[in-house]
Amino acid sequence: MNVSINGEMIIGQRAVRGSAGSVRAFDPAKAAEIEPAFGLATEADVLQACTLAEQAFDAYRATSLEQRARFLETIGENILALGPALIERACAESGLPQARLEGERMRTVNQLRLFAKVVRDGLWLQATLDSALPERTPPRADLRLRKIPLGPVAVFGASNFPLAFSVAGGDTASALAAGCPVVVKAHGAHLGTAELVGKAVQAAVAACGLPEGVFSMIIGEGRLVGQKLVGHPAIKAVGFTGSRQGGVALMHTAAARKEPIPVYAEMSSINPVFMLPGALAGNAAKLAQGFVDSLTLGVGQFCTNPGLVLALEGADLDAFRAAAAAALQPKGAGTMLTAGIHKAYRDGVARRAGIDGVTEVAVGSAEGTGCAAQAALYECSAATFLADPALEDEVFGPSSLIIRCRDIAEMKAVADHLEGQLTATVHAVAADADLAAKLLPTLERKAGRILFNGYPTGVEVSHAMVHGGPFPATSDSRTTSVGATAIERFLRPVCYQDVPQDLLPEALRDANPLGIARIVNGELQAG
Amino acid sequence: MNVSINGEMIIGQRAVRGSAGSVRAFDPAKAAEIEPAFGLATEADVLQACTLAEQAFDAYRATSLEQRARFLETIGENILALGPALIERACAESGLPQARLEGERMRTVNQLRLFAKVVRDGLWLQATLDSALPERTPPRADLRLRKIPLGPVAVFGASNFPLAFSVAGGDTASALAAGCPVVVKAHGAHLGTAELVGKAVQAAVAACGLPEGVFSMIIGEGRLVGQKLVGHPAIKAVGFTGSRQGGVALMHTAAARKEPIPVYAEMSSINPVFMLPGALAGNAAKLAQGFVDSLTLGVGQFCTNPGLVLALEGADLDAFRAAAAAALQPKGAGTMLTAGIHKAYRDGVARRAGIDGVTEVAVGSAEGTGCAAQAALYECSAATFLADPALEDEVFGPSSLIIRCRDIAEMKAVADHLEGQLTATVHAVAADADLAAKLLPTLERKAGRILFNGYPTGVEVSHAMVHGGPFPATSDSRTTSVGATAIERFLRPVCYQDVPQDLLPEALRDANPLGIARIVNGELQAG
Repeated sequence: MNVSINGEMIIGQRAVRGSAGSVRAFDPAKAAEIEPAFGLATEADVLQACTLAEQAFDAYRATSLEQRARFLETIGENILALGPALIERACAESGLPQARLEGERMRTVNQLRLFAKVVRDGLWLQATLDSALPERTPPRADLRLRKIPLGPVAVFGASNFPLAFSVAGGDTASALAAGCPVVVKAHGAHLGTAELVGKAVQAAVAACGLPEGVFSMIIGEGRLVGQKLVGHPAIKAVGFTGSRQGGVALMHTAAARKEPIPVYAEMSSINPVFMLPGALAGNAAKLAQGFVDSLTLGVGQFCTNPGLVLALEGADLDAFRAAAAAALQPKGAGTMLTAGIHKAYRDGVARRAGIDGVTEVAVGSAEGTGCAAQAALYECSAATFLADPALEDEVFGPSSLIIRCRDIAEMKAVADHLEGQLTATVHAVAADADLAAKLLPTLERKAGRILFNGYPTGVEVSHAMVHGGPFPATSDSRTTSVGATAIERFLRPVCYQDVPQDLLPEALRDANPLGIARIVNGELQAG
Repeated sequence: MNVSINGEMIIGQRAVRGSAGSVRAFDPAKAAEIEPAFGLATEADVLQACTLAEQAFDAYRATSLEQRARFLETIGENILALGPALIERACAESGLPQARLEGERMRTVNQLRLFAKVVRDGLWLQATLDSALPERTPPRADLRLRKIPLGPVAVFGASNFPLAFSVAGGDTASALAAGCPVVVKAHGAHLGTAELVGKAVQAAVAACGLPEGVFSMIIGEGRLVGQKLVGHPAIKAVGFTGSRQGGVALMHTAAARKEPIPVYAEMSSINPVFMLPGALAGNAAKLAQGFVDSLTLGVGQFCTNPGLVLALEGADLDAFRAAAAAALQPKGAGTMLTAGIHKAYRDGVARRAGIDGVTEVAVGSAEGTGCAAQAALYECSAATFLADPALEDEVFGPSSLIIRCRDIAEMKAVADHLEGQLTATVHAVAADADLAAKLLPTLERKAGRILFNGYPTGVEVSHAMVHGGPFPATSDSRTTSVGATAIERFLRPVCYQDVPQDLLPEALRDANPLGIARIVNGELQAG
């Protein structure tokens, strides 16, 4: 698939050069702009994308499960067909290494394939049938429920995953799987990557004979275009991955609409790691190495980066701290994704270092040129942490904070005090079982994913994954942005009462022509 | 069960007389206050109820499926054991007839029983297991997902169902089923009914050995107490049935919290009825009688009352109109639930009658004393309806509006124009099939329930029911407030990664000790 980067948006089947100004992508490693210039969307461009999405909705949601699954697979094939040009451009725009982006591309394609399987299985339809009971007093009508898509979805990609959480990432894949047209606002940090992937999706729309409005991608600077998009009446839900500030702004816009709509914003998490005493005893060096590797992976630019470590005061913690310092000091400064993220990281680390009671444990190699960031580990007492809400702010990047707890009660107090998180990690051995059992109910209430004896970075795309959690980790703890159940975010139930067989959707007809699992009179029946 | 009405709130296991003033219930038929006076909650009472709920949450959500199911059944038994005293008081406070309230009591008890079955089945846990793949590159961890309850829920009951949508109604039953403690704000229109039912729930909490904070019920005048309740940090979700104004106010309060929480408000719907030409031909009289009976049932005080009828201009519509007028005129004036509802109805009808282009088709018997309301049927052209948004406002009570459409295109234009609805009804015969098929996609986008050849009043409590719909029918179209899936509103997913067997929740252990259906490596396995 031979696609050139022309600085264009995608509005249905057209490639459009925005006329509201222009902007260039930026290479954070070279600290230099990258050609070409991208045209910025006018308000008319946004309206056009939304109108096309609205016009495409009924036809797109009427596609068969097989058609829709093939469309998702075709997007994946087209992304692979972009070849090395995609990886080269994504490397230049993000500062991320080639191997990482090749892995991310595979993850993106596999995510599209997973949703193709999910679509074909049809469990997401939640088909439910209650038979008529004409002899009952009062009689019961024939009632049948299925899920239908919400409508066109606006997607805002992440800075830190130019492929897997972006133009054809998890939000787009799950919305398309649900039957929702998608309008992406391309992330300003990887405009060329966005254009390439956007054209791969656009080509899949055409190849699958779908209405052009199923997919558009607009380019805009600042928040105005995004707010216009979220405010458009055709848009019925929003997927967002980014900062707490950005996510909360979209939540407010969506809530203030004439018709409020759901916002799925994945925002802010510091991902506490609880080192229980038994696990730490005699194992401090190994745990410290694993922790530092997780902390500095990808220059710490993961939503699930371990930003907090809790342990009990004592010799084992001292050993852990010394080992972590030794592991961190040789870590080289890595290029961050954007100049803005780099500045925010430096500011965040400086703010944290300046708080009374916070001391430095170790820093990595000094910063180089461009957007290279120095890893940094701090510590403080639980009392200090509990007294200052600023210490709970996410510092996006390779920085973490060790919380020294006097006893288990204080560790539990910190856990109770925390805001919502994407993940909570426990390091425990058999001797810690009672303590872990006491901690678990709190962690369940705080986090979307609880993991034992590992590190939170690395988010599997599978059926049981939850990449979500209570606010401010996300705007909606009832959902996940990664994994098969992400599709549920874009669906709503409709009940059909006494509707004639030939007017019923196939999923609900007596003969079950789709062969899907259904709940019939309260009993689950296999497909 | 011998329970007296003392004018008390329920705060855990205590009966508390509020000290922030007092208020009496009102008999709308006699237009007279009813003894005794009820004490109003102080802010401290609200805090106490929320604190107890928070304290009860972890213990309550840890109950076994069987314990929780038995608790729901015990509430039902205790409500039945209140005997005729409950029906008498509810009649006096609502003006509703005895037979209706006896039916509503049975519906309430059956609803609790349905959720007991739902709890035992365990499908709501959505147990999902992905096996570890240690040989894969990168290795996959062991991942297991289950749903857990959100936390304490605030419930605001409806004026029009003193039992089924109130203290122990659908919101309370589904929240308790999910494992959430509940704090009810009693509806001011049926305080005595609320105290009786509240004490039945309170007794069930004690009998089942549950922590007292699982249930509280507070009494407050105006919106202040409700806003305090929704603003309390312990509260994690809100169930509400009532006016659009009231629901939207709670949505704003919930969205403005430090931690925003979901609001499930069932608010406003005019429930359009589409009379397709084939169905109307030769059948106008029968359809008119059915329509008028549905319109005036319960003095029109149903959320699903048919407030809009659409048909094509012509002789059949003229016949329908004449028959509807004949059916409506003898309908007696019925006592409405409250003086406030009666006044709002009179104002709403007067506003509608005063709009240019709207003409009266017929009115029922003239109003009597007290809160008795006169049924009223109006008509206007589709053009008039499309031009004036006020004609789409819900007039709660026995009033409806016939929309005369010039052709099918105009009927479709009205459907497209409508806001979200709880229901949409189609009267169609075989000859209307093509037209019905064209209308259906629009109706799916507008309504939570689509019914054929019936009337929308009557909401079955079953697995496939959807009592929901796009805004402003509800605040959250992804959910239903009636039926088995109402439990999903109060749940969120948690993923357990590499958690040792003995620390895993039972629902996720290898041996499946609960015997529930689970999704294992993407395949549904029966329990």
